[in-house]
Amino acid sequence: MSSEQKTVSVTDIRAAALRLAGFAVRTPLIENAHINALAGRRVLIKPECLQRTGSFKFRGAWSALTALNNEQRKAGVLAYSSGNHAQGVAHAAQLLDVPATIIMPNDAPALKLANTRGYGADVVLYDRPGGESRESLGESLAAEKNLTLIRPYDHADVIAGQGTCGLEILQQTAEADVSEADVLVCCGGGGLTAGIALALEENSGLRVRPVEPETSDDVRRSLQSGRREFNEGVPQSICDAIVTPSPGELTFPILKRLCGPGLTVTDQQAMQAIAIALIRLKLVAEPGGAVALAAALFHKDAIDSDSVVCVISGGNIDATLLQKCLALDT
Amino acid sequence: MSSEQKTVSVTDIRAAALRLAGFAVRTPLIENAHINALAGRRVLIKPECLQRTGSFKFRGAWSALTALNNEQRKAGVLAYSSGNHAQGVAHAAQLLDVPATIIMPNDAPALKLANTRGYGADVVLYDRPGGESRESLGESLAAEKNLTLIRPYDHADVIAGQGTCGLEILQQTAEADVSEADVLVCCGGGGLTAGIALALEENSGLRVRPVEPETSDDVRRSLQSGRREFNEGVPQSICDAIVTPSPGELTFPILKRLCGPGLTVTDQQAMQAIAIALIRLKLVAEPGGAVALAAALFHKDAIDSDSVVCVISGGNIDATLLQKCLALDT
Repeated sequence: MSSEQKTVSVTDIRAAALRLAGFAVRTPLIENAHINALAGRRVLIKPECLQRTGSFKFRGAWSALTALNNEQRKAGVLAYSSGNHAQGVAHAAQLLDVPATIIMPNDAPALKLANTRGYGADVVLYDRPGGESRESLGESLAAEKNLTLIRPYDHADVIAGQGTCGLEILQQTAEADVSEADVLVCCGGGGLTAGIALALEENSGLRVRPVEPETSDDVRRSLQSGRREFNEGVPQSICDAIVTPSPGELTFPILKRLCGPGLTVTDQQAMQAIAIALIRLKLVAEPGGAVALAAALFHKDAIDSDSVVCVISGGNIDATLLQKCLALDT
Repeated sequence: MSSEQKTVSVTDIRAAALRLAGFAVRTPLIENAHINALAGRRVLIKPECLQRTGSFKFRGAWSALTALNNEQRKAGVLAYSSGNHAQGVAHAAQLLDVPATIIMPNDAPALKLANTRGYGADVVLYDRPGGESRESLGESLAAEKNLTLIRPYDHADVIAGQGTCGLEILQQTAEADVSEADVLVCCGGGGLTAGIALALEENSGLRVRPVEPETSDDVRRSLQSGRREFNEGVPQSICDAIVTPSPGELTFPILKRLCGPGLTVTDQQAMQAIAIALIRLKLVAEPGGAVALAAALFHKDAIDSDSVVCVISGGNIDATLLQKCLALDT
């Protein structure tokens, strides 16, 4: 499959699953009596914070890098990312012996910067608060050095890789006797959401619903209007992993075709969900990774189904912020 | 199998696994590049903190309660526990509609007390710091009310249930291409350790090694002397889950036959391991649940094998102690 391919199917996802087998963690689907009681329905947690590199992004990165030819692998790859795609690409590249250059914002969480460098990648910082464009920086750098650009979500192999999480949900919900559920997925550019939606397409009882921060609700608005809506300026939210200008070109048609209405949560709700995940689920979620759980806990009325699946997309959070969440009265 | 049965075999463990299928979480085996680098070898984490009720104890409780006859179920069960066996029995009893009375120390972590009550059990407190004996209190209460006593580790069905964790390790290490490893298991009375050791017996490359707090090293000393050694008084350690007077009557012969030398760690090392598990593994471990990881991180020279498996046995820790661990400089 070429990185310029503009459609993704469940066949691509199954092929990616074969490439990932034995390299990515098959994360469990976890249920907790307390969380069920708090949410007022069955809540099945898919903890991708337990994935290699602490987020689902390893799936897409591994999928994309293992689809490259030898020449591309030798020349190296480039990615831009607030930190989770960065770590996913850096670690996959390290394991596959591919040189990696990663463009990251200068205000990315310290842990994500340190980890990306720790995986041996060459990190180039850009001025995100100053409004510098990572996309144009990335494209010029890739052209200059003959690197293959691994886009964070508008990339068929990346979407196929993220979709492997959906194949697992399909099987694991069946094992848990859940045939109908809203599947709440933390959504930035929509790579994970689109991938999971494609993987679940064959089961009409499982409907994906994207969840975003209130201040960065481009996907919710896009699903409403039927076309790609954009956030104005640089949205302020602690959910760095999922603050993106708009749904992707490649992801949005998939979201539009397959997803139910979007949900949004506040930063405060995301922080409360982090505290609850720690104490109840024994899981560390980062803010962007906790919004689906936050929606299940704090927006019950916006959900109709008797069961929900909540994807916790990542857990790369700095210790100071984790402390702050633990100090909340939940 | 009767609760008075005095031997346990891998056949009993396989039977327990069938009863647990679909009810207990099949926890994954997780590997993390940072942890490998810190430990200087491959470290495979078995996170039983993700088990129902936040610890492996649900396995043994479910195994024991599903082995009762109808009359026993109707009359109810009794357990004594610092909190994890308490929650396991209370939750299994709730799901199976069996009345449960649980004897807990008055200084048990607040979260464990609240959770046990939350699962609907009748909690009776005893004065642990004052030296009151939970065993004699438990036996008299059980006799008086005709309750079946579910001992925390000296109980064949409980050991068989905990052993199901070992069956998973057997399969998951094979999938991870690990054929030789020290399997480090947090050890109190030895139910989990004995169960895992029995399950791994067929693979001579996997050797179980119990890990304890330095102040409560009865198992280490017992393995050395070849007979059950006892701790003096009430050992001081934050690792409440694994502070026990001695290895069990039923568990010790199994430990003696199958385990390698014991390891010990300090409370400070357990707390550092908790912080590292949070930041690196995205997992919440409680002090007693973190000692195996602490041994892998801080006692490298006491381990010969190229790979280790570390069981994180539970994650039921109060928020204040978690805060304290996060504030450590790791």
